[in-house]
Amino acid sequence: MAREPINVGILGATGTLLSTHPYFKIHALGASSRSAGQEYAKVTKWKLASPIPEDVKKMVVQECKSENFKDCGVVFSGLDHDVAGDIEAEFRKAELIVFSNAKNYRRDPIVPLMVPLVNGDHLSVVRHQQKELGLKKGYLVCNANCSTTAVVVPLKALEVAFGPLQTVNVVTMQAISGAGYPGVSSLDILDNIVPLIGGEEEKIEWETLKILGGVNADDTGFEYHASSPLVVSAACNRVPVIDGHMACVSVKFAGKAPTPEEAEEAFRKYTSEAQKLHCPSAPPQDIVVHDAPDRPQPRLDRDLHKGACVHVGRVRDDKVLDLKFVCLLDNVRLGAATSSVINAEIAVEKGFI
Amino acid sequence: MAREPINVGILGATGTLLSTHPYFKIHALGASSRSAGQEYAKVTKWKLASPIPEDVKKMVVQECKSENFKDCGVVFSGLDHDVAGDIEAEFRKAELIVFSNAKNYRRDPIVPLMVPLVNGDHLSVVRHQQKELGLKKGYLVCNANCSTTAVVVPLKALEVAFGPLQTVNVVTMQAISGAGYPGVSSLDILDNIVPLIGGEEEKIEWETLKILGGVNADDTGFEYHASSPLVVSAACNRVPVIDGHMACVSVKFAGKAPTPEEAEEAFRKYTSEAQKLHCPSAPPQDIVVHDAPDRPQPRLDRDLHKGACVHVGRVRDDKVLDLKFVCLLDNVRLGAATSSVINAEIAVEKGFI
Amino acid sequence: MAREPINVGILGATGTLLSTHPYFKIHALGASSRSAGQEYAKVTKWKLASPIPEDVKKMVVQECKSENFKDCGVVFSGLDHDVAGDIEAEFRKAELIVFSNAKNYRRDPIVPLMVPLVNGDHLSVVRHQQKELGLKKGYLVCNANCSTTAVVVPLKALEVAFGPLQTVNVVTMQAISGAGYPGVSSLDILDNIVPLIGGEEEKIEWETLKILGGVNADDTGFEYHASSPLVVSAACNRVPVIDGHMACVSVKFAGKAPTPEEAEEAFRKYTSEAQKLHCPSAPPQDIVVHDAPDRPQPRLDRDLHKGACVHVGRVRDDKVLDLKFVCLLDNVRLGAATSSVINAEIAVEKGFI
Amino acid sequence: MAREPINVGILGATGTLLSTHPYFKIHALGASSRSAGQEYAKVTKWKLASPIPEDVKKMVVQECKSENFKDCGVVFSGLDHDVAGDIEAEFRKAELIVFSNAKNYRRDPIVPLMVPLVNGDHLSVVRHQQKELGLKKGYLVCNANCSTTAVVVPLKALEVAFGPLQTVNVVTMQAISGAGYPGVSSLDILDNIVPLIGGEEEKIEWETLKILGGVNADDTGFEYHASSPLVVSAACNRVPVIDGHMACVSVKFAGKAPTPEEAEEAFRKYTSEAQKLHCPSAPPQDIVVHDAPDRPQPRLDRDLHKGACVHVGRVRDDKVLDLKFVCLLDNVRLGAATSSVINAEIAVEKGFI
Repeated sequence: MAREPINVGILGATGTLLSTHPYFKIHALGASSRSAGQEYAKVTKWKLASPIPEDVKKMVVQECKSENFKDCGVVFSGLDHDVAGDIEAEFRKAELIVFSNAKNYRRDPIVPLMVPLVNGDHLSVVRHQQKELGLKKGYLVCNANCSTTAVVVPLKALEVAFGPLQTVNVVTMQAISGAGYPGVSSLDILDNIVPLIGGEEEKIEWETLKILGGVNADDTGFEYHASSPLVVSAACNRVPVIDGHMACVSVKFAGKAPTPEEAEEAFRKYTSEAQKLHCPSAPPQDIVVHDAPDRPQPRLDRDLHKGACVHVGRVRDDKVLDLKFVCLLDNVRLGAATSSVINAEIAVEKGFI
Repeated sequence: MAREPINVGILGATGTLLSTHPYFKIHALGASSRSAGQEYAKVTKWKLASPIPEDVKKMVVQECKSENFKDCGVVFSGLDHDVAGDIEAEFRKAELIVFSNAKNYRRDPIVPLMVPLVNGDHLSVVRHQQKELGLKKGYLVCNANCSTTAVVVPLKALEVAFGPLQTVNVVTMQAISGAGYPGVSSLDILDNIVPLIGGEEEKIEWETLKILGGVNADDTGFEYHASSPLVVSAACNRVPVIDGHMACVSVKFAGKAPTPEEAEEAFRKYTSEAQKLHCPSAPPQDIVVHDAPDRPQPRLDRDLHKGACVHVGRVRDDKVLDLKFVCLLDNVRLGAATSSVINAEIAVEKGFI
Repeated sequence: MAREPINVGILGATGTLLSTHPYFKIHALGASSRSAGQEYAKVTKWKLASPIPEDVKKMVVQECKSENFKDCGVVFSGLDHDVAGDIEAEFRKAELIVFSNAKNYRRDPIVPLMVPLVNGDHLSVVRHQQKELGLKKGYLVCNANCSTTAVVVPLKALEVAFGPLQTVNVVTMQAISGAGYPGVSSLDILDNIVPLIGGEEEKIEWETLKILGGVNADDTGFEYHASSPLVVSAACNRVPVIDGHMACVSVKFAGKAPTPEEAEEAFRKYTSEAQKLHCPSAPPQDIVVHDAPDRPQPRLDRDLHKGACVHVGRVRDDKVLDLKFVCLLDNVRLGAATSSVINAEIAVEKGFI
Repeated sequence: MAREPINVGILGATGTLLSTHPYFKIHALGASSRSAGQEYAKVTKWKLASPIPEDVKKMVVQECKSENFKDCGVVFSGLDHDVAGDIEAEFRKAELIVFSNAKNYRRDPIVPLMVPLVNGDHLSVVRHQQKELGLKKGYLVCNANCSTTAVVVPLKALEVAFGPLQTVNVVTMQAISGAGYPGVSSLDILDNIVPLIGGEEEKIEWETLKILGGVNADDTGFEYHASSPLVVSAACNRVPVIDGHMACVSVKFAGKAPTPEEAEEAFRKYTSEAQKLHCPSAPPQDIVVHDAPDRPQPRLDRDLHKGACVHVGRVRDDKVLDLKFVCLLDNVRLGAATSSVINAEIAVEKGFI
């Protein structure tokens, strides 16, 4: 499928995933006005094991104003939430298409909250978003919180196979990279657990409903799982792991519960729209089910499929609800930028870009 | 209260807690026949931050046979389960009183499974145990698994204040010291989580019922919470923490649930029999409730009250069950030897030793 | 020795060590003007495993101005170097006696740089300091950098026994607590080493000369080891250890080198002035020599003698210089506040307070 | 260069590096008799982040006897030293070519001890080895200890540019993976340093001389740097890092010492025989010099060039010797199997296989 490469802008992030992308070509990098005008390699605090892509190193960083990005077919925002709100709004108003990792507009009733392995169908609401805001081309799509993403992918697979869930209990063990840099002080986390991540439990409990719920009949908004009420309870912990969020999940179905074997089968068979559309950054398998009783483990499994899949293991009956299991995702890839990129790939495939 | 010191024997453990004990005097140390006849300092793999007590260092280690411990008023067993079964039985048969940290006899219907901050009243069943086995003086008492202990103390406080619980969901994050030495390979746990601890979930799910259930009317056995059925579900994880097991717990009450404030009040007011009896190793407060929203934390809190209390924090409503909270205990102290020692102190106070 | 307790002021630090001190009584706490007027428990970011002393918790924090500390017989400064310079100068000018952990005045030719287990004799220079500044009572004494302290104690023991050293090579592996809070980002140090600690190598290379060198004949300054030139080379690394700085040290003597056995003997016999004066916070042994070939280790040894001693192990011949060994100190105790406190105790014993 | 693929046998190791190798084709896997006859995936304790290569997974493991490997053009041995001695000897006797990672024959005066980025020229001695042992085809080549490898590559570059070294001081900080699996207990290394790695210091001090020394005139043995005596002193520490050995190195030259800038230039220009021969597994650059003052760091740098290069940073004057710097290598790749593989590639290129 020989396409014209699409120019992309990147705000407040690294572009690692895009330096050799089949659809996208990095055209502009945005950062704070403090860094603007300098080479990317000079202003970044690069903390990844892979080096900065050569083509990105020498790009001159722009201020995050839409005029500097007007030739971009799509803009990816990895901005911090304290600045993302205004900048993303200004970009959209200037008829730019924005895929954001920030939390600011996730609860906006006309903005899709898309986990690419779950609800690519929510994208249709951007037409209504444009209409509401009087835009022709610009729109905004958010991806979900990283720990929400870990959980909704297997939950979606269960709902597809066995009908709606009624209750979900989640306890997370989250990596330090989820807090950014410098983020978590080493004195807070070496030989320690912090049983609180501000706002995280609320995000899992709320975002899950928007993501797993449908789109309303006329594509103007979301159903928030209202036809079959779903209750989610989350408890979030920071642990001394570098990358990879784990969660212990237990679920109760509205209808008849599957056996663990049936659930495993459903996880393995699950195929997201991203996969069906052959999005280039989608994993070859959405959910990797582990047979070894002590897997998945963050250090050993997070790198599989370039961190773009979700791992599930220890699927078993739950005495309190119906079923329990463990899941894992790479929070810095599928839990962040990879989701935005696949979301945009879905948009390309469906003609929204 | 000037007592005659009671000679104690210690099998397969360190005796750290006893070197300056007001009731107990270390009289004999037992170990494998391979070590027997050598000085303790020579055979131990001491991995504690505190040095070996001077009086223990030079004691000659005995083989674990009852004849070498016949002058001991009480014997503490920290033996591995692969040898504890036979040795503890032989000691009891020789009319010795044994308090064990091993798992072998925890499910025995005539052996008390005692968490000193919870069910000191179970001790009464040792009279029946003696009768059954035709013994005059010897008996065996077990303490619970470390992660069970972390959980049953706050659960007991809730049941005392608000009546029986119906369901309990537990997700643990457990320290490496729980696996002994050498135990967990560093390659398995640095920058990692292992979502399986063999047999641990079953222990929490089963032991909780025996511990929280009552003693039957004629003191001949245990009720296993049968009058008001309780269901416990546990998921256990090993995390890169040295000492201190954390658990995220959610509970549903058989009757009306308390508010988080009422539950906190109940935790604070809870006073175990060990405290009431002024056992010298009992903590001044059984349950320490934390106000800071990010506490308890293993590294910062495990040392309080010499590791003899349980910590609770983040008490809040649970959308799925009724109430949820976080708890922490020092697995190498209250989760192990400290429990055996307080159990024996209770036995002394009640005239069983 | 029944003394009147001496009122002490504490600037920018916790006072943990002083809450039950036999000579000193915490009288006033100083912090930034932002915190002034509030209770200590409200403004501190307490990250220690031991709780805040009860008597300190409710003390109202003062602004760091000498008028708020005028009733203090001695003031301990744990201020950050960016503010310590001006504040300590103002306090001294107001005739207060200041013992500082900050680096600002360490190189001042009239300020003693005192490691209490090494050069208590340098205190005599404060009389000249007073004269130079026209003061009657006030003076300033600094303690050394934490990694310098680890190294100079065993070096002093070697010089006392075998005469001057000629060259010293030091490679450190330093704990994260040395960088303060929040200090080192967990993303920088989990599963990692950072082979640079800004300014640390220069401190070890320079401070060692001032500390190990003598006082000049008329007590007006320091000799900087000039009579027998000493060259020190240091390479400093940050490692994922919470508390405890390790160093691999190799040394060459100006004269005949001792055997490893002779050196060990010298380490064991070494007795500092702080010990001889029976300073209450001095360790019972200045240098603890380890026989086990894999010791000292930070986690297992840092707590010995309340962190007030230096540990030495693996004393052996060096093929390049003469002798090599490993040393360890608790950087948050003898490497910081404990040094200031013992320095002040020496001053009390010698009549300088 | 279209070659016939060479069948290789692998003893006691994973073959990860060879599953897509341009010269070599995995033909047979050897393990203990306990595992023999089973599929590789069943018997391995795979602890790598990358999955087992599909073609290796189902291979049936053979007992380590030469008859099972007689069709192999080369055999790679990753056996433990307790069995490597006999097995490797038996293989060589059966006219097999063996490249070993084990330590058993490193000091053998007719066995090359080859670090592929340093002394490919030592390979010539295998002709004499064959003659001595009456062999036509079989011979044995060892690669060096992992920490030796980290150090000799930059030392070689310095000797090539500035002539022989006189003294070298090395202090290592070594990763846990260097001890194999289960290897280091997590209780020994979390929040800790162990200042002893048994036998490691002797290996660095001795192997360096054999590797950096030349081959004698008639290719029958090694010169051990005898023409210009070299003295090496090493101190080795285990630190809580997963992969990547760091070393702080200081050196003195027999002749005039270079400036740090000249040394950096020499590191950058250094080109090993492996590179010149275009060995497929050789790194594009032997030594990567870091400009950032806080690099190299294990977590951020070990993956560069697939772990096949050595990193150098902080090149600066040393007050005690002449020059000091930091170096890093990936101990599980260039420090182990990668070295064996490149050694064999050199042998292929030079016609020894």
